Amino acid sequence: MMPKMGFVRTVSIETPSLTNNTADAQRLEKCLIDELKTDHIRIPLSVIKKLPSNLRSWNFRAKTVLFKDRYSWILVDLLNPVSNSPVLGMAIDIGTTRVVLSLINLETGQEIGQTSFDNPQSDIGPDVLARIHYSRQDGGLEELNHLVIAGVNKNISDICKGYGYKKEDILLITGAGNTIMTHLFLGIEPNQIIKEPYIPCVNIPDTQFAENIGLEINKNGRAFLFPNIGSYFGGDLISGILYSNLDQKEAPCIMVDVGTNAEIVVGSRDWLMACAGAAGPALEGGISKMGMTAKPGVIDKVWIDSKTNHLKIHTIEEKSPIGICGSGMIDLAASLFLSKRIDIRGKFSEETCKEQLLEKDGIKHFILVSKDDSGIGDPICLSQIDLNLLTSSKAAMYTILEVIVKNTAGLEFEDLKKFYVAGTFGSFINPVSAISIGMLPDIPIETFEVLGNSSLGGAQVLLKNPDAFERIIKIRQSITYIELNVNQEFMNMFSGAKFYPHTDTSRFPSLNSV
Amino acid sequence: MMPKMGFVRTVSIETPSLTNNTADAQRLEKCLIDELKTDHIRIPLSVIKKLPSNLRSWNFRAKTVLFKDRYSWILVDLLNPVSNSPVLGMAIDIGTTRVVLSLINLETGQEIGQTSFDNPQSDIGPDVLARIHYSRQDGGLEELNHLVIAGVNKNISDICKGYGYKKEDILLITGAGNTIMTHLFLGIEPNQIIKEPYIPCVNIPDTQFAENIGLEINKNGRAFLFPNIGSYFGGDLISGILYSNLDQKEAPCIMVDVGTNAEIVVGSRDWLMACAGAAGPALEGGISKMGMTAKPGVIDKVWIDSKTNHLKIHTIEEKSPIGICGSGMIDLAASLFLSKRIDIRGKFSEETCKEQLLEKDGIKHFILVSKDDSGIGDPICLSQIDLNLLTSSKAAMYTILEVIVKNTAGLEFEDLKKFYVAGTFGSFINPVSAISIGMLPDIPIETFEVLGNSSLGGAQVLLKNPDAFERIIKIRQSITYIELNVNQEFMNMFSGAKFYPHTDTSRFPSLNSV
Repeated sequence: MMPKMGFVRTVSIETPSLTNNTADAQRLEKCLIDELKTDHIRIPLSVIKKLPSNLRSWNFRAKTVLFKDRYSWILVDLLNPVSNSPVLGMAIDIGTTRVVLSLINLETGQEIGQTSFDNPQSDIGPDVLARIHYSRQDGGLEELNHLVIAGVNKNISDICKGYGYKKEDILLITGAGNTIMTHLFLGIEPNQIIKEPYIPCVNIPDTQFAENIGLEINKNGRAFLFPNIGSYFGGDLISGILYSNLDQKEAPCIMVDVGTNAEIVVGSRDWLMACAGAAGPALEGGISKMGMTAKPGVIDKVWIDSKTNHLKIHTIEEKSPIGICGSGMIDLAASLFLSKRIDIRGKFSEETCKEQLLEKDGIKHFILVSKDDSGIGDPICLSQIDLNLLTSSKAAMYTILEVIVKNTAGLEFEDLKKFYVAGTFGSFINPVSAISIGMLPDIPIETFEVLGNSSLGGAQVLLKNPDAFERIIKIRQSITYIELNVNQEFMNMFSGAKFYPHTDTSRFPSLNSV
Repeated sequence: MMPKMGFVRTVSIETPSLTNNTADAQRLEKCLIDELKTDHIRIPLSVIKKLPSNLRSWNFRAKTVLFKDRYSWILVDLLNPVSNSPVLGMAIDIGTTRVVLSLINLETGQEIGQTSFDNPQSDIGPDVLARIHYSRQDGGLEELNHLVIAGVNKNISDICKGYGYKKEDILLITGAGNTIMTHLFLGIEPNQIIKEPYIPCVNIPDTQFAENIGLEINKNGRAFLFPNIGSYFGGDLISGILYSNLDQKEAPCIMVDVGTNAEIVVGSRDWLMACAGAAGPALEGGISKMGMTAKPGVIDKVWIDSKTNHLKIHTIEEKSPIGICGSGMIDLAASLFLSKRIDIRGKFSEETCKEQLLEKDGIKHFILVSKDDSGIGDPICLSQIDLNLLTSSKAAMYTILEVIVKNTAGLEFEDLKKFYVAGTFGSFINPVSAISIGMLPDIPIETFEVLGNSSLGGAQVLLKNPDAFERIIKIRQSITYIELNVNQEFMNMFSGAKFYPHTDTSRFPSLNSV
């Protein structure tokens, strides 16, 4: 089933006659202008070159592959209307650490499959800062650009082969990444982004010929990278907003992307406000860095056995435990607090922890997994220092939420109809645990919705729905970006949020029953 | 002196600050939108890539090279505002037999120089028909395209070297040619143009990256080919109208391009009507084919010695006569008629020609140059058959003028404020002679104005004046193209015009005094 509103449409072109001797290209143009109810469309020379013989051998019908840029519709390619050759698109999440590709059938809108790979730029620098420094060296930018483009090309080639397609079957690419990843992907100088006054080179990259940015797909193929709002608010978030439909909601909703930084957007179809948690000092280290990234043997869930009051754990693929990941850490903190093993200040209690607590170099450590049960030959512990960092991070998250929702947007948390949790890390958080430690506000559990990879999701939406173009531009224009001022008021709010769940326990009524 | 309205402008871009952290590209965009009073502009990725370091090292000033396409302004390149590197454009007349290039300084609007070369496609086919037939062969179109593009590239390289420039200094190319030459230049299938219902592939070719059509200039360079109205009315004529300013005249004027065919446009700023003489059967052979093309020794002027009543001749470079060209032929016919050596039916009079007339194979020949005075060892003669062809041609020209000016536009010849004669051949016609034989209407001699190579002229205008883009599109849209119906009425008018000057001598009052 071909979606009527998609980018692939079969059209009939008026046949020429002695009384209508308009050129083929202009008749095709008129046909598409009528079909799309637009005022103009761009047709590339490569399509025009063979137009006379193609139209005549196709009986003046054609399958059109369309796309858009900021100002107009584009005819990407013109195909035999009766051929079965596939028409594919590729959505790409250009992550700092991982790049995810999703192959889409543009005629049905269905996903064919996904693949992903570690961003090879990581070998040069693990974070964006290191990469920008490297980009200043002679040939550095070109090398960083080549690494990611070559990686994408290899993965495009592999996934196509895997599903029995050719890379030439791909006609459209949409990509979303943070501002710096987007610059590096396009080969654009990124160095001003990290220097005051933090100026990206480009906010809205135009639709390009894919080959113009080195992407090896169909020679007529086009690529569009999501626009950014500034250094801290990238195309990945615009893509996430598109995916969550935040910009079309009647009642206010919120989307929180918890990654290395926390980025937050709150709003509805009438207004959008955003801020990035990079301004919160305790979040700068990043919650997700406190543990390990998810892999077999990593503890991803922790809970209290209701009979024994012991802490129970689950590991990925149920292998012997080797460490703990971010979501496990939040579960653990919640379990420690709810079982009173830590107090409201987030300090270990010797009384309740008993023999599970030991002291090393004067620092308390909580033994989660004994040496015997561990997969690394050593006990798996949480130190008071680790816990303090988590406390700061959860407090920063809550404070930022409070600042933007209450102080800035003038709402109560209860006014939020949906609380979208985006990002890979966010996907695994148990909202009940996050509420228990006062990281997320105490609103009904059904309000929370996990979006998964919303950056990829928005890029997929754009491949299926031409209207998404206007929404993207409108989202970008309508967002009010709030610079977080880490002033005395912020610090006071932050101090209150460092308690478990909060100095003001009335904010967490659901915990009163505990 | 930089013309304020040209394509090269130096601008100042707002400097970034913490309160204006818009991206460099978007600040440049805004600056140009304000400068050009437009609503959007396209900036290529190649310019964006180096924008941050360029803008900062140029102190947020830049020399911009601009261009247009049908829908928007384009930033072609961004240059150091204080550099002296030349910014050049090339206007090209893409003739079927000859290609003429004019190198223009885009900052001053001055022409630097011209060069020209025989269209190398002539080796494949002397006329457009033969070339179209050849284009249907495997690789034929590519070969024809390559021939003209390679020729242009070589000449661009040569003329640049000659004036001490690099081909990379050229940023804009404008080209005008007939519909088929334009298709071949762009590598577009032309074969439907000559088959009923005579459909070009394209009416309005969009502005292209020059490298996209194989032109070797600056890698950011752009090329625009003038649009056509149909198979018979090409970009060369649109260019000619632009050059003549016919579309801006208050009172009606006419432009006649006399080449292999005769193409005529009549009108003013309010309306434009056109027709092409290819529909006139007697013109199909073409006036210009009757003699030789201009070269040393060719008779280009003929007149009557008022004392002796002998015919006098002038040859190009005053070499010994070897033949006669089109303009010489019209002079000769006028002289023959005015000296009564031919009668009003265009037949040689034995009584007046005397010994200058001889008969070969039953056909009368008029000896213009004796064997002794000739540069070819034979007398130079005009046969009755040659003359009959000229008579038909001049009659066709007059009839077409009559049809379009009087019958179609409803004007009298006297209403025409200007009579522009365009085309290489037209440049050499003596209007007095053309009136004398009844080829051109008997209007005041100062009404006539020779335009020269108006196809090249219009292409030059477009390099200097951005407003020309809108005029070109408007000219194309507003022209009413008149199909000449060779019906009984036409044939009656044609018969009357085959007399010298016309059966209705009252139309040529200036000849009554003779």
